[in-house]
Amino acid sequence: MHYHKDAKLFNNKFWVGYFFSQSSSVEAEGRRHYFRYRLRPKLLRDVSKRDVRTSILGQEIAFPIAVSPTAMQRMAHPEGEVATARAATSLGTGVILSSWSTSSIEEVAAGCSPNGPRWFQLYVYKDRDVVRDLVRRAEKEGYTALFVTVDTPILGRRLADVRNKFALPSHLRLANFSTKQQHSSGVKSMQDSGLAAYVASLIDPSLNWEHIEWLKSITSMPIVLKGILTAEDAKLAVQHNVDGIMVSNHGARQLDGVLATIDALPEVVEAVRGSNVEVYLDGGVRSGTDVFKAIALGARAVFIGRPSLWGLAYDGEAGVRKVLELIRDEFSLSMALSGCTSIADITPDLIQKDRFLVMAKM
Amino acid sequence: MHYHKDAKLFNNKFWVGYFFSQSSSVEAEGRRHYFRYRLRPKLLRDVSKRDVRTSILGQEIAFPIAVSPTAMQRMAHPEGEVATARAATSLGTGVILSSWSTSSIEEVAAGCSPNGPRWFQLYVYKDRDVVRDLVRRAEKEGYTALFVTVDTPILGRRLADVRNKFALPSHLRLANFSTKQQHSSGVKSMQDSGLAAYVASLIDPSLNWEHIEWLKSITSMPIVLKGILTAEDAKLAVQHNVDGIMVSNHGARQLDGVLATIDALPEVVEAVRGSNVEVYLDGGVRSGTDVFKAIALGARAVFIGRPSLWGLAYDGEAGVRKVLELIRDEFSLSMALSGCTSIADITPDLIQKDRFLVMAKM
Amino acid sequence: MHYHKDAKLFNNKFWVGYFFSQSSSVEAEGRRHYFRYRLRPKLLRDVSKRDVRTSILGQEIAFPIAVSPTAMQRMAHPEGEVATARAATSLGTGVILSSWSTSSIEEVAAGCSPNGPRWFQLYVYKDRDVVRDLVRRAEKEGYTALFVTVDTPILGRRLADVRNKFALPSHLRLANFSTKQQHSSGVKSMQDSGLAAYVASLIDPSLNWEHIEWLKSITSMPIVLKGILTAEDAKLAVQHNVDGIMVSNHGARQLDGVLATIDALPEVVEAVRGSNVEVYLDGGVRSGTDVFKAIALGARAVFIGRPSLWGLAYDGEAGVRKVLELIRDEFSLSMALSGCTSIADITPDLIQKDRFLVMAKM
Amino acid sequence: MHYHKDAKLFNNKFWVGYFFSQSSSVEAEGRRHYFRYRLRPKLLRDVSKRDVRTSILGQEIAFPIAVSPTAMQRMAHPEGEVATARAATSLGTGVILSSWSTSSIEEVAAGCSPNGPRWFQLYVYKDRDVVRDLVRRAEKEGYTALFVTVDTPILGRRLADVRNKFALPSHLRLANFSTKQQHSSGVKSMQDSGLAAYVASLIDPSLNWEHIEWLKSITSMPIVLKGILTAEDAKLAVQHNVDGIMVSNHGARQLDGVLATIDALPEVVEAVRGSNVEVYLDGGVRSGTDVFKAIALGARAVFIGRPSLWGLAYDGEAGVRKVLELIRDEFSLSMALSGCTSIADITPDLIQKDRFLVMAKM
Ligand SMILES: Cc1cc2nc3c(=O)[nH]c(=O)nc-3n(C[C@H](O)[C@H](O)[C@H](O)COP(=O)(O)O)c2cc1C
Ligand SMILES: Cc1cc2nc3c(=O)[nH]c(=O)nc-3n(C[C@H](O)[C@H](O)[C@H](O)COP(=O)(O)O)c2cc1C
Ligand SMILES: Cc1cc2nc3c(=O)[nH]c(=O)nc-3n(C[C@H](O)[C@H](O)[C@H](O)COP(=O)(O)O)c2cc1C
Ligand SMILES: Cc1cc2nc3c(=O)[nH]c(=O)nc-3n(C[C@H](O)[C@H](O)[C@H](O)COP(=O)(O)O)c2cc1C
Repeated sequence: MHYHKDAKLFNNKFWVGYFFSQSSSVEAEGRRHYFRYRLRPKLLRDVSKRDVRTSILGQEIAFPIAVSPTAMQRMAHPEGEVATARAATSLGTGVILSSWSTSSIEEVAAGCSPNGPRWFQLYVYKDRDVVRDLVRRAEKEGYTALFVTVDTPILGRRLADVRNKFALPSHLRLANFSTKQQHSSGVKSMQDSGLAAYVASLIDPSLNWEHIEWLKSITSMPIVLKGILTAEDAKLAVQHNVDGIMVSNHGARQLDGVLATIDALPEVVEAVRGSNVEVYLDGGVRSGTDVFKAIALGARAVFIGRPSLWGLAYDGEAGVRKVLELIRDEFSLSMALSGCTSIADITPDLIQKDRFLVMAKM
Repeated sequence: MHYHKDAKLFNNKFWVGYFFSQSSSVEAEGRRHYFRYRLRPKLLRDVSKRDVRTSILGQEIAFPIAVSPTAMQRMAHPEGEVATARAATSLGTGVILSSWSTSSIEEVAAGCSPNGPRWFQLYVYKDRDVVRDLVRRAEKEGYTALFVTVDTPILGRRLADVRNKFALPSHLRLANFSTKQQHSSGVKSMQDSGLAAYVASLIDPSLNWEHIEWLKSITSMPIVLKGILTAEDAKLAVQHNVDGIMVSNHGARQLDGVLATIDALPEVVEAVRGSNVEVYLDGGVRSGTDVFKAIALGARAVFIGRPSLWGLAYDGEAGVRKVLELIRDEFSLSMALSGCTSIADITPDLIQKDRFLVMAKM
Repeated sequence: MHYHKDAKLFNNKFWVGYFFSQSSSVEAEGRRHYFRYRLRPKLLRDVSKRDVRTSILGQEIAFPIAVSPTAMQRMAHPEGEVATARAATSLGTGVILSSWSTSSIEEVAAGCSPNGPRWFQLYVYKDRDVVRDLVRRAEKEGYTALFVTVDTPILGRRLADVRNKFALPSHLRLANFSTKQQHSSGVKSMQDSGLAAYVASLIDPSLNWEHIEWLKSITSMPIVLKGILTAEDAKLAVQHNVDGIMVSNHGARQLDGVLATIDALPEVVEAVRGSNVEVYLDGGVRSGTDVFKAIALGARAVFIGRPSLWGLAYDGEAGVRKVLELIRDEFSLSMALSGCTSIADITPDLIQKDRFLVMAKM
Repeated sequence: MHYHKDAKLFNNKFWVGYFFSQSSSVEAEGRRHYFRYRLRPKLLRDVSKRDVRTSILGQEIAFPIAVSPTAMQRMAHPEGEVATARAATSLGTGVILSSWSTSSIEEVAAGCSPNGPRWFQLYVYKDRDVVRDLVRRAEKEGYTALFVTVDTPILGRRLADVRNKFALPSHLRLANFSTKQQHSSGVKSMQDSGLAAYVASLIDPSLNWEHIEWLKSITSMPIVLKGILTAEDAKLAVQHNVDGIMVSNHGARQLDGVLATIDALPEVVEAVRGSNVEVYLDGGVRSGTDVFKAIALGARAVFIGRPSLWGLAYDGEAGVRKVLELIRDEFSLSMALSGCTSIADITPDLIQKDRFLVMAKM
């Protein structure tokens, strides 16, 4: 897929920087990791009818590809998070709203189609009242799960670097945070431009398993940990009774040199075996066969981050829908050509991990 | 070999698109997979006389390199499939005619030399009468085997994309399908330009092992499954009493990220050991040492797709003959330099799979 | 980090040659070796407070990154070694002064901050009096360890080649060697320009373990062997009661095709297990995650060579400080994002050695 | 070493083609194979005195680097093989004269220094009298071994291709073959220009072990098989009582995709263990560490082909001497930096085969 080549996004250097920034060349590498998993198709199965539906935490989705949270989407398109959410939910899949959205929890909820679920991504703040308020609003507005981002006790260097150079344009705001709220948190006069940096500074670097316990105590929403990458942490997650794990490395924007998510997936899947914890993956998913590989290796569903932004920048709601449809159709085709008619058919024996790296131009 | 650099083909953007299209960069990768298999020559054998003959399904061929089916060859040269078939058979090797040829089963049969066999490639259509008609005509015209393409229950994305943009030029037709036949299939007014897409849509996506049983019941021709890539499917093929397996990934034009055929070959060979099923390979064969490697790893013969098209576009029958002769002579030379005087001498110990990938500019 | 791109250094071809020279492309390769070690972060640990202090030979340093000895630093900046030493020690870390410095042992001692240790790098000369003199002066001036460079019994080819073309500018001198000293060594009239080559020629190519015993007999300073790369030599080092080993390949400037230091580190660490010998590493460390990886694999601290020169050339003392701060802060961040709050937390299970090489543009 | 960049050779397209031709990109690959073997230096050994002498078949050579046979050297320089032979022998090492030299057996013998041995490379011809004549002349002229090239029962494709385009310039001749000799072999009128192709056509493609037995019966010179690459053939060589094996792939000019010689070396060394057969290597040796690696892996000496031609083209005898000296000095340096003082010290534990390929720009 080369849709990102066309994205109008590229005309605006300002947020190209933001949307594309990542720790060194890891994203490029991340893509290459997918190439090492080769497909072993099973042929001569009747694939005339294929069912690509699955569920996340008990809610059906029309296909196993949903949208990861990305901050400040109105920078890419005036309708921002509302357009993204409407695109995903109207196709029957789900969307995770970022804590740092430029559309509010309430605006997005109002804009969603009832066909697909909406979930809320949470950064844990030092001020527990801020967290409590966000959770309460998400519950009230029909968000059905909390995706707690656990890989960001501190903001990664690149993002911080970039932040120094950019300010949220004056007509935009971090819509989930009231100016009043900032003030009560002790900041006297805070211009919108400094708000992003300010909110980042509110993140609690002491984030630990007790926060998870506490979150469970204040909400009935299921809790998914976004950012787990190892078997050790996956086992702790099972012990703490979370409902899901999103294998993620934050799009390679946090820790430089970290595992590629597709490589980390198998050990996490193995570690939760026997529990009810669902495992998802994001990071580097760009084509239908990437989705297929992640599911074969044990993911229940995958999420896309940057591709949804490219679609959004290109053509708003229609652009995001186009991206989701493209990947969905490629995924369905790869099922057909691999002899699978349901998600359950996509088993690990359909994959061979190549002992060799074969370079491919990208 | 750089003959494709010269192919007049390259002057015509229109069908460059068609002939070269493939899923992402997999073909390029496919080539690289050959480099990982290194030759271990045996020296000081008398190689003054070398016999490169072998047989396919009991019929002798002059050397173990034959021609894979490729659709619509009159787009490359006015004599199309007839020129290709004459080139191959006059050299004493075989050719597989595509179902979607722009020369008819009968025209090609008439054009063939009696020196080499002709075989027919079959897509299985929803309308069994269409299949029955094709099979009957192929039998009548002296085709001696059916190569059933099993990797295409649905057409791969790229081909489909490209198809949207191109139409079969108005002076060409899919020669095996009468306009009448289309009509009786329920299509009222069908222009030639839409025929290709139409015929593709007739393919039966429910294609499964029962179709193979049924094909065996309607023909006495041996049946080869084109597109098998795994040991599991190879074992099923043995159980269903097919006569041959062509390890193929459709030139990497169907399923993106699929195994390279040279990597899939050993497990298929191993799976059919002890049966009478013959194993062939196509995909990425470009030089005589590629042929040598595939045979050492257990293929009975290899087939070439694109190289034959390059030859055809370059100089019609003479061009295809030139390509076949070049690869044949390189193959014979690689036998000599490896100490082999017959096909039977080409054993697996002449190959070492490199644990390392060594990049090579191509 | 791209600070070297900006270094004013690049305006002066003359010493670019000297500072960047290395055996073939090994340094570039060296960098790539780091990429093969991927991080396995542990999340949901309270990382709000992190302690990056450690010690070298009993002396505390503020963070585990110190400065390797590099010769003739006044070629990069008028304040040379004094600026480098002040930058490191003022930040609370240590610096190793090269034997071939353009500032003397005494000048550097006077310029150092008391916040961090200074150490002296020794080449062993044929004339033991020269060695004795250097050791005595280093002891007197408060240097607290001897780093004996053992990988240079003879100067590597590249350096020698380059040397033919360059001469130490006439206003500079190898500050630890008096003109008188040269004379008493038998050289009649020696211009400054030839001094470098001359001093190199004084190195004792018979350098062996007995020299180490002898050095121990003439000084009470702890002794670190700089350049050990194998388990075999590490075990001998333990037997000879040295105090530390610096795993180093002299920045890939001596032996072409030698092991990358990050690959050699684990066997050295394993070999000294159970002894009191401390293990450090230099070579190719450019980012905070490189530091993190080396420590996870068992290094007590790492040293940087070229990056400190780039900083020095760019902005003298401030430039070196900037480079050290950058790497220190990245290191602290990588600790936070990996769930570590102290150096002791950085354990081998946080690393996965990739079986595959993934290429990255650098 | 970049001396080939300067070679005047490059001004003449005509024989650049000849001297550089090779099967596809294998030579480039061959070089890369050396990079995978990394050096594990032993330090703190007294390396002040190093002895680089060794012997080949009982004759001392001053260092373990000699010159491989390359045809038609007067195309590179007017003094051709005489200059090359004088350069090598005057340095105390040996040279192998090609059968297809443009200076005769006698001219080269007269030109050699007595300091180093000369050997004769033999292609086995259909006409045994031609062989007998060459062997007799070589014996008479003081050549002390026969290197029988066993990888060329037929000339490789590239060379043949090139040959079609070039003719030996009219002032040159294949000096070991008299015009009369050609005539008596049945060729009526043979112009010099066609002589090369003609002589190639005289090679006996039935070359086999019986020829080796026969050669042993007609000469008392020791026999070395040039071109063996596998353990199987090495064992046969031992059984046939040959005196040496040169692991060679003819500079990757014969069989495309063949093993790199450095990769084939260990199995050949292992196979002859316990016998008196000496093992040498050529192919891709360009630097002193390449020599070091080959010796560590069991070669008694290495030979260089193309580098000697580059030197010859650049500056005749002096150029070849310069190339040999450069590689010799690098080799001696790599011994020093690895802790070796004699050839016997260069043991396999000084090498680590990297499980990873690390790309290097070349
Ligand atoms: C511009 C951008 C903003 C992001 N903002 C957030 C965020 O606010 N919260 C969060 O948990 N993850 C955030 N992420 C990470 C994504 O949720 C996701 O993990 C990542 O983008 C997946 O990789 P992909 O972009 O390769 O699909 C962001 C990623 C990008 C590219
Ligand atoms: C232009 C083109 C058309 C093709 N048409 C058909 C076809 O009609 N039927 C079929 O079974 N395979 C078809 N193939 C696949 C070939 O039979 C063959 O599997 C493939 O080209 C082999 O790889 P190679 O081109 O690298 O030699 C086609 C391939 C190409 C390139
Ligand atoms: C310009 C330069 C000069 C050096 N001079 C010395 C020296 O005098 N003594 C020494 O032991 N090492 C010397 N080294 C090696 C360094 O101490 C160190 O091992 C190496 O630079 C570490 O690799 P890095 O530059 O990749 O960090 C020198 C290195 C460079 C680049
Ligand atoms: C121009 C050229 C001519 C050669 N001629 C001969 C020859 O006449 N006889 C022979 O046995 N090998 C011949 N060889 C092969 C060399 O002896 C040797 O095996 C090879 O060049 C070694 O590889 P290198 O060039 O990478 O050092 C020739 C090689 C070259 C490049």
